[in-house]
Amino acid sequence: MGSLNDFDLTINDSISSNVNNPMDPEEFRRQGHMMIDFIADYYKNIEKYPVLSQVEPGYLKKRLPKSAPYYPESIETILNDVQDHIVPGITHWQSPNYYAYFPSSGSIAGFLGEMLATGFNVVGFNWMSSPAATELESIVMDWLGDMLRLPKSFLFSGNGGGVLQGTTCEAILCTLVAARDRTLNKIGKDNIGKLSVYCSDQTHCAFKKAAQIAGINMNNFRVIPTNLSSSFSMSPELLRKTIVADLEAGLVPTFLLATVGTTSTTAVDPLGPLCNVAKDYGMWVHVDAAYAGSVCICPEFRHFIDGVEGANSFSFNAHKWFFTTLDCCCLWVRDPAALTKSLTTDPEYLKNKATESKQVVDYKDWQIALSRRFRSLKLWLVLRSYGVEKLRGFLRSHVKMAKMFEGFLVADDRFEIVVPRNFATVCFRLSPSAISTKPVLYEINGTRRSSGGPEKALTVNEINAKLMDSINGSGRIYMTHSVVDGIFLLRFAVGASLTEESHVVTAWKVVKEHADAILSRYNTCEFGPGQQ
Amino acid sequence: MGSLNDFDLTINDSISSNVNNPMDPEEFRRQGHMMIDFIADYYKNIEKYPVLSQVEPGYLKKRLPKSAPYYPESIETILNDVQDHIVPGITHWQSPNYYAYFPSSGSIAGFLGEMLATGFNVVGFNWMSSPAATELESIVMDWLGDMLRLPKSFLFSGNGGGVLQGTTCEAILCTLVAARDRTLNKIGKDNIGKLSVYCSDQTHCAFKKAAQIAGINMNNFRVIPTNLSSSFSMSPELLRKTIVADLEAGLVPTFLLATVGTTSTTAVDPLGPLCNVAKDYGMWVHVDAAYAGSVCICPEFRHFIDGVEGANSFSFNAHKWFFTTLDCCCLWVRDPAALTKSLTTDPEYLKNKATESKQVVDYKDWQIALSRRFRSLKLWLVLRSYGVEKLRGFLRSHVKMAKMFEGFLVADDRFEIVVPRNFATVCFRLSPSAISTKPVLYEINGTRRSSGGPEKALTVNEINAKLMDSINGSGRIYMTHSVVDGIFLLRFAVGASLTEESHVVTAWKVVKEHADAILSRYNTCEFGPGQQ
Repeated sequence: MGSLNDFDLTINDSISSNVNNPMDPEEFRRQGHMMIDFIADYYKNIEKYPVLSQVEPGYLKKRLPKSAPYYPESIETILNDVQDHIVPGITHWQSPNYYAYFPSSGSIAGFLGEMLATGFNVVGFNWMSSPAATELESIVMDWLGDMLRLPKSFLFSGNGGGVLQGTTCEAILCTLVAARDRTLNKIGKDNIGKLSVYCSDQTHCAFKKAAQIAGINMNNFRVIPTNLSSSFSMSPELLRKTIVADLEAGLVPTFLLATVGTTSTTAVDPLGPLCNVAKDYGMWVHVDAAYAGSVCICPEFRHFIDGVEGANSFSFNAHKWFFTTLDCCCLWVRDPAALTKSLTTDPEYLKNKATESKQVVDYKDWQIALSRRFRSLKLWLVLRSYGVEKLRGFLRSHVKMAKMFEGFLVADDRFEIVVPRNFATVCFRLSPSAISTKPVLYEINGTRRSSGGPEKALTVNEINAKLMDSINGSGRIYMTHSVVDGIFLLRFAVGASLTEESHVVTAWKVVKEHADAILSRYNTCEFGPGQQ
Repeated sequence: MGSLNDFDLTINDSISSNVNNPMDPEEFRRQGHMMIDFIADYYKNIEKYPVLSQVEPGYLKKRLPKSAPYYPESIETILNDVQDHIVPGITHWQSPNYYAYFPSSGSIAGFLGEMLATGFNVVGFNWMSSPAATELESIVMDWLGDMLRLPKSFLFSGNGGGVLQGTTCEAILCTLVAARDRTLNKIGKDNIGKLSVYCSDQTHCAFKKAAQIAGINMNNFRVIPTNLSSSFSMSPELLRKTIVADLEAGLVPTFLLATVGTTSTTAVDPLGPLCNVAKDYGMWVHVDAAYAGSVCICPEFRHFIDGVEGANSFSFNAHKWFFTTLDCCCLWVRDPAALTKSLTTDPEYLKNKATESKQVVDYKDWQIALSRRFRSLKLWLVLRSYGVEKLRGFLRSHVKMAKMFEGFLVADDRFEIVVPRNFATVCFRLSPSAISTKPVLYEINGTRRSSGGPEKALTVNEINAKLMDSINGSGRIYMTHSVVDGIFLLRFAVGASLTEESHVVTAWKVVKEHADAILSRYNTCEFGPGQQ
């Protein structure tokens, strides 16, 4: 292992030749243009690929070398490998035929903003480290807060403020830690085991993880049950009952997570009544509108966040349905000091006069990490390239397409809509009335077989799972599922930016074809239910 | 506020006209090429801008409108505004004259990898969501682990494994939570208040923040003092003494953070001896090599991480000194199950056959957030575009330039090197022997004034702070400071990718000019110390 003397020798060997600058502007230009064309062609051809990648686990290890190359390889070689080995392993989230999870809506403006942030590559932990990064973020967060008609108290112009986090998981963790410490400062730090936190059984799993990370006693993690009859929204009465019981048991209710647009069914928790309950017990309320927040810039959807004025913090993912690429979670807090009290660091090597003047925001104290990318650029480019008008238009077109798909389902009585559609996600299934759950005989290649074995027929849920697998296996469209109140449902989430009406028409054809095949294979109900 | 009927009307109004697709491939191509040229020109002209932004707090609010535009604006208009309003507020981390903090070394390959990740825009939370994103990450983490000669037990090929986090802050938080829960599973969750954690007074502030977030009782956050005589490395003996005292007080030592390349002075903690101490008490050791880890791919530097085989986890930032843009922190763990036990979520809407088969890695369970970008692309492009050979060459050239700067300092006896240089960062100051700390008179515009007021002379630290401010205020180069053992020092960190030897020569000229001016203004020691 080298002493400093060896080192002197090796330096001269290795840098004597062939060290070109890795940031040479003209080489950057040459390769950058190649990459733009590569990606533009990818979008142009994206419908040729199966939406859901069809590779098997371990596929890539078989195709790549066992170790990093010793000598440089050309960009041309690398791009060929991307095409040959990476693209087959991609599930094409940008495909117009992508309807899974919640799509991540990209856009040209979002892409360009990310490029610009990567190009400047500033590490904007505090104001000083690149003032534009901090100031642009504060400005666009106020712009966006205005577009959403958030209460003034959430904006910098009203002594609150907004910050870009990577993901909702981080937004939840930061606000939970702020709430935790706010309470512990009153009741003493030794009482962390007594804090209780609240959500519904539809709340995103990010909350449970955040609570685990923040050291909340998981015995005090309260999950309020919901059901189909109330469209899976959280009951304020049940919340209050749970809180009262916890208080009686000596716990300290601390934090409520309410959701606008849950992951499974886009359910909406009633913010006003929930905040009123939380207020009675001095709890922090965070509103997770990861999916549905963005569409609330349309006046006709704004009512879904009515009541947010009673919350302490609010977040939505601009990378989900607001045309900025991953990652870009917009978080507003009413009391930034509560956040920064928990998250501030002040080491000597970051001290500077701007911070000491207290005239600036240092966003490192609003988030988990110290380093942060210049994310506001992509949000700014999206807001300016499209303007409020076009952004509303894009969102409404997605809702309209979802509605169209819903119309197709409604017109075919083999299907049912499981919960009313709120936004651009349709939750549906093959209706129990269209499915026989008794064992039936059917023929494959002349051999008579029984569905689900001789004793057991497939359940309605199993048939629907088969429908989904069959659709996704075709590679033509991609949808995902959930199970709520025991019901397996398929989720058709419109939101990929390339999706147009013709794609939805095709998607419906695909769904119908696979439903025909599944029903004719597993079902005797060809002439409607109750006839076998 | 719109009912569903109003909504029907508004839809038709707004999407009737002018909704072009926000991802149109040909428009993408046109604007993408423009942005490449914009950024290439930025790099070409980067030396024309002051390295440290000279704007005042609030500058941008005065220049931008109060709200988001209602109608779309052209990319040409937006790029003009970037040039006119954003660039002046940028501190140019990519400038060859940037020597502050630790530079964030960009590269063409890193930039292209980020573009590709943004282009695919997959949300790779689990294998299923885009197999290539997971598999490429596992493969390059093994490649890189091999390059660093990490113990096999840290690699997938040895039942450990690597993962890309955003930042070291996240890597520390995740491993701390894993260690915390490992201990709590033995001693009971109610004992979280008894856990103690250890670091040195040189450890990055990220650790304290992580401990706060993870609910560690901050009374049990132990900071081992270091000093100049041991070059600020952590003493294993002092660590053991502290642990023993804590055990006697009924605490449960849980986690040690050791650093290779501290932020202030790039000090190196002795991993082997520290891990031996930690092992005696069953503690988790995380090695934070955020800055210096990358250079350990050069054989002559590898000895700095000798002893890592005794640690539980190891991380370094590829976005710091490994040519991938922010963010890209490489974390390896010996026991992935310890991590995933704390961080796994398993909601119904993410269930899939690949996960159930247990043949795949689901990286969402290795990190805080659910969503994750396809970060491995940039690391893969860097490794392939440059190869091991060129990467070593780049790193060595930075070390060589730092050494050159150090040589300039050594040859000028007004300066002193505060701590021996380990890597490409030089810690120096104007030597006390070159500075009079008695009040002196000097002239400004013909008026005689006293330095630091009539009674008080400037201290050595104050003079050095003035030197730094004077240098940075010139905009020609940018450096930052730290204070260790009471000594204010200037840090000259070579690492910006565009920096070449000529820049370092210029930097030295700038330092000398400002030192001349400061000393002649505040000092009577023109003919050496002790002569006034």
